[in-house]
Amino acid sequence: MSDGPATILRVRFGETDAAGVANNAVYLQYFEIGRIELLRKRGHSYADVHGSGIDLIVAEAGVRYLRPLWFDDEVAIHVHMTDLSRASFTFAYELFRGDELCATGFTRHACVQRPSMRPVRVPEWLIAAVSE
Amino acid sequence: MSDGPATILRVRFGETDAAGVANNAVYLQYFEIGRIELLRKRGHSYADVHGSGIDLIVAEAGVRYLRPLWFDDEVAIHVHMTDLSRASFTFAYELFRGDELCATGFTRHACVQRPSMRPVRVPEWLIAAVSE
Amino acid sequence: MSDGPATILRVRFGETDAAGVANNAVYLQYFEIGRIELLRKRGHSYADVHGSGIDLIVAEAGVRYLRPLWFDDEVAIHVHMTDLSRASFTFAYELFRGDELCATGFTRHACVQRPSMRPVRVPEWLIAAVSE
Amino acid sequence: MSDGPATILRVRFGETDAAGVANNAVYLQYFEIGRIELLRKRGHSYADVHGSGIDLIVAEAGVRYLRPLWFDDEVAIHVHMTDLSRASFTFAYELFRGDELCATGFTRHACVQRPSMRPVRVPEWLIAAVSE
Repeated sequence: MSDGPATILRVRFGETDAAGVANNAVYLQYFEIGRIELLRKRGHSYADVHGSGIDLIVAEAGVRYLRPLWFDDEVAIHVHMTDLSRASFTFAYELFRGDELCATGFTRHACVQRPSMRPVRVPEWLIAAVSE
Repeated sequence: MSDGPATILRVRFGETDAAGVANNAVYLQYFEIGRIELLRKRGHSYADVHGSGIDLIVAEAGVRYLRPLWFDDEVAIHVHMTDLSRASFTFAYELFRGDELCATGFTRHACVQRPSMRPVRVPEWLIAAVSE
Repeated sequence: MSDGPATILRVRFGETDAAGVANNAVYLQYFEIGRIELLRKRGHSYADVHGSGIDLIVAEAGVRYLRPLWFDDEVAIHVHMTDLSRASFTFAYELFRGDELCATGFTRHACVQRPSMRPVRVPEWLIAAVSE
Repeated sequence: MSDGPATILRVRFGETDAAGVANNAVYLQYFEIGRIELLRKRGHSYADVHGSGIDLIVAEAGVRYLRPLWFDDEVAIHVHMTDLSRASFTFAYELFRGDELCATGFTRHACVQRPSMRPVRVPEWLIAAVSE
């Protein structure tokens, strides 16, 4: 899957911490924004996922912090799929400030039935959406 | 209503911002923690509120920032009710670091029916709980 | 001061809470984003403020929650100044989803010297910037 | 290093998201709280680290989400060191709700000089503190 245009955001003041840089937990929020925007570009809102009675859960996540992000930095979030099975799929992320790669990471996702939270197969339409 | 023992928390590193102090938005989270703990002390979990098919919404909030809160400061949250009608109720908050008053504020609440979000009367059990 | 074009953002999934709507504390972050963007439009980065050895603090804040904001809602933040003195200034905010007014609020600001955090006059360049 | 008593916290309402559970990004905040408390138990405040002209940065982080955490769940954060060199050290985390293991993870840290953010050796006193 090519990831198309990146999602652009700016580091918010409230996302920095007393060390003067974006707090390490914020990166997982950036990843979440990136994958939701990817779904939107594929023609699916995250609401579609919920509406279908399932939930996408994050089963695993990882971040490598290469360069600090500062308040007001413009950050480009690139997302692409790296792995897809019937039970789960994985996104890889790259955060760029200009042409500097500042962080990389991944999230692995599974589908669960609501409200039991039991694992179910990733639906075909979602597989199609994310693997385009 | 006497507010009983205060809720104690520490300013988290992730709650500070690049100015080195607790970000202004965090105070509303502290207020939320304070009122939820107050309900708990009255024998009601916030889940009780949801379970009864209604939701407590915040209709209005205000904060006065008197002294900055720093990372790792131990903060005591005092909550008491200042106003109660059938349609809404108001909590007042005081945040202390030791005996320094660092912030004051209030939140005014109304009840809504789920999922329509239409206003309903505050239930008697909730009035009793918060006005003890 | 006319507030020029509004700042547009989307309610992030991580900004919602278990009630399904944007958490009440998030609004103060939206206000912060709005006023920082206003400064930027006036030709000043927030870094300029810090660089000049002073800090802009929030002395008081208030929010009126009129309609809930849901995940993925596109929100327009309008900001304009309502009050200006040598010691402080006040911004008023309006959050719109389409043409629905969903929240209003204000923040009152003072300037302090770093690192003593003692109040100082609002510098002329900042008065000029925000009162344009 | 034995990790001594766990740090206990409750899932805050504002930490949940519209899926009804603690948002995936919050876990990195829990880890941060856990390691700061560990330092405190070893007799060092995080302020000591800063005061010494260095900063502890997060170079890498990972989380495995095993069971969802719900609003108001009481969570025990266990932290212990798994790796230590002159250039970096690694903490491992386990989040328990009662005796259910709900998440595991790690963070790898390096030291940098402020404000250049260039890597430096982990100081002896910090090595001693975390490896007790």
